[in-house]
Amino acid sequence: MSANDSHPMTISEKIFSRASGKEVKAGDFVLANIDLAMTHDITGPLAVDGFYEIMEGKEEKKVWDPSKIVILFDHQVPADSLHAAKNHIMLREFAQEQNILNYDVYEGVCHQVVPEKGHVKPGDLVVGSDSHTCAYGSLGAFSTGVGSTDMAAVLASGKLWFRVPQTIRFEVEGKLPERVYSKDLILHLIGDVGVEGARYMAAEYAGSTVRSLSISERMTMSNMAIEMGGKAGIIEPDEVTEKYLQERIPGYKLDPYWASDDGADYLDVRHYDVSNLEPQLACPHNVDNVKPVSEVEGTKVDQVFVGSCTNGRFEDLEIVANMMGDEPVADGVRLLIIPASRTEYMKALRAGYIEQFMEAGAIVESACCGPCMGGSFGLLGDGEVGLATSNRNFRGREGSAESFVYLGSPATAAAAALTGEITDPRKI
Amino acid sequence: MSANDSHPMTISEKIFSRASGKEVKAGDFVLANIDLAMTHDITGPLAVDGFYEIMEGKEEKKVWDPSKIVILFDHQVPADSLHAAKNHIMLREFAQEQNILNYDVYEGVCHQVVPEKGHVKPGDLVVGSDSHTCAYGSLGAFSTGVGSTDMAAVLASGKLWFRVPQTIRFEVEGKLPERVYSKDLILHLIGDVGVEGARYMAAEYAGSTVRSLSISERMTMSNMAIEMGGKAGIIEPDEVTEKYLQERIPGYKLDPYWASDDGADYLDVRHYDVSNLEPQLACPHNVDNVKPVSEVEGTKVDQVFVGSCTNGRFEDLEIVANMMGDEPVADGVRLLIIPASRTEYMKALRAGYIEQFMEAGAIVESACCGPCMGGSFGLLGDGEVGLATSNRNFRGREGSAESFVYLGSPATAAAAALTGEITDPRKI
Repeated sequence: MSANDSHPMTISEKIFSRASGKEVKAGDFVLANIDLAMTHDITGPLAVDGFYEIMEGKEEKKVWDPSKIVILFDHQVPADSLHAAKNHIMLREFAQEQNILNYDVYEGVCHQVVPEKGHVKPGDLVVGSDSHTCAYGSLGAFSTGVGSTDMAAVLASGKLWFRVPQTIRFEVEGKLPERVYSKDLILHLIGDVGVEGARYMAAEYAGSTVRSLSISERMTMSNMAIEMGGKAGIIEPDEVTEKYLQERIPGYKLDPYWASDDGADYLDVRHYDVSNLEPQLACPHNVDNVKPVSEVEGTKVDQVFVGSCTNGRFEDLEIVANMMGDEPVADGVRLLIIPASRTEYMKALRAGYIEQFMEAGAIVESACCGPCMGGSFGLLGDGEVGLATSNRNFRGREGSAESFVYLGSPATAAAAALTGEITDPRKI
Repeated sequence: MSANDSHPMTISEKIFSRASGKEVKAGDFVLANIDLAMTHDITGPLAVDGFYEIMEGKEEKKVWDPSKIVILFDHQVPADSLHAAKNHIMLREFAQEQNILNYDVYEGVCHQVVPEKGHVKPGDLVVGSDSHTCAYGSLGAFSTGVGSTDMAAVLASGKLWFRVPQTIRFEVEGKLPERVYSKDLILHLIGDVGVEGARYMAAEYAGSTVRSLSISERMTMSNMAIEMGGKAGIIEPDEVTEKYLQERIPGYKLDPYWASDDGADYLDVRHYDVSNLEPQLACPHNVDNVKPVSEVEGTKVDQVFVGSCTNGRFEDLEIVANMMGDEPVADGVRLLIIPASRTEYMKALRAGYIEQFMEAGAIVESACCGPCMGGSFGLLGDGEVGLATSNRNFRGREGSAESFVYLGSPATAAAAALTGEITDPRKI
């Protein structure tokens, strides 16, 4: 196909065209070259086992390109079981042997650290053996989660088969009301289209509202694309992206090519006006069971968790700090604050927020996934109710199968920490 | 026995005489009134179950005196398993129902929080369902660990049977050399008398060296009395004790009665001069396998843990901070810092140490027992070597049964964190 035949393309089609070396369109099957592969302490060991299975009998058992792989320890850190300790040792040895960059237990959550350290740029094709790898779409990459077996193939070959996804575009207009954030917006979109609303599609978030968001706020939205079934959650890179990347990738310059063309073929384009959006909560036990705060106000909470790759950045902690002032955590509530990375922790510490949170009676831990995936610490017991800024509230996700998790913005989390119940943050 | 028959008494004999309402001497069996009972999230649930068994059939199932009981959550916090979450819920409900003071997940390690909050004073008889309850001997109390069944009896009746222990007195003279601390001293004593050297005895630490120690340093020594088999580890209260207590118990005045009398009957009096004491390490896998640092220098370490009720106070963190300066943690070493209580954490934070530790690449967690008892996080894997400021290095104590734990002072811990191997802190 020559350039003359070029059809207007979505950003996803452009990325897969580049990564497969031929012009492709949604629906095509392609063998694509991976720009970055990310794995972590939970899924990494399986991927490494798979890699050695593939390599069996070969003389040189080397990964395709160590400079395009990063390993991070975040889910079970510091090692919370003998199994975790064993996994860490195994991955450390693998990283050393293969000369792969390994962010060890002190650095933070993969989806925060990978972009923070400048590993992703617009137009990249990124895979990670974690479902929320779609987060890097916030920087204009096509970034998606894969299983450990797929990751094993990537480690060995640097390539993976894809069906180029169709795109569902969310056009969002209007100024978000005070104390309503991109977390409320993404919950609203997920509630609207449902958990399968974007299945195997690239979700594209666009419009003036999305353009007005910081990278931190965009990350929240891209991160949760998987919660509507999306393969990716892409935001067109702009000068906000450029600024973020210039602080991380020396000499980076925005390339306007990495955007969907006018007239590109969308499966669906949906329009939203968020001028009057209420704070939203995903209610037990599904992320698409979304309700405005007014419908669940007054629900008692036992634990509030502020953190995770979804909402554990400085900007999120700042919202909580500003909301809390010098008020203490409500009696009977456990407020658990876990910044998404060491860098974000340090920013919060230097701004005085760590002191403020501790003084208020919060528990502040070093950067890690914490209770988000229910395997580490901060677990909910039978009958307990948690409100979290993280991305999933499936039954048992944060502990007991008999517990209840609500997902909301940092502002909604702060309001609940102060009052002990789900509270409209605009009333604080 | 009339007052005229009074024999010179040890402080332990005095305390049991008061607590049992009659003059007693070592070897006597007494039913003593408990002044304070402490239980925590690991042993508490068993004690509570036992309490309800004792109470079966009674109309009012009330503890003997809620004002003399404290509950603390420290071993598995924030809840690191569904079992822990369940225990927490159960203990919270018990505390509320019985009107017992409950220090929840954010407050810190029992043996730090109990004295810190002014629950103990000289002459008290304290029991706790934790083996290091002997720590409060640092304030001139007779304080000892009991099992959950004994604790159940105490919760019900406020009384417990004891054999009044004989006393072994350690007379320590000489100025501790620079970068040699009370942790080195207590390890030296334990190494000298062995794990059974003070079995069912009250260890009494005395002499000018002990009198020169701060309460924090004294706590380290009393805490570890159990590691020589001691029932208690008592230090005669003095003006240092008085000052510490006046900051916690309004109007407290030192009562010189709470000291061993001249001519009291000791099973053994041992004399030490510590003017030339080297930094000491308890080597795998027993606390009495103590060697001077010169004999184990150069041993590679994977993890350094600074914390626990033994050495997790501000003074300990200050030693580490001063040793580290602006040097980073050595490559390949995980430095885990967990202050012993929220109060100690806040002091360290305000002194800039938390920032300094995080900047150096340490992992700093909210106050809890951490890896000390191997049940929470920061576990060692197979073949890994840890150096800890805590109190036990039994096989598997900090994780894998195939890992190796050395115990040392905060200064020795800092030296290892900086160099990646066991290092004489005087060489840093």
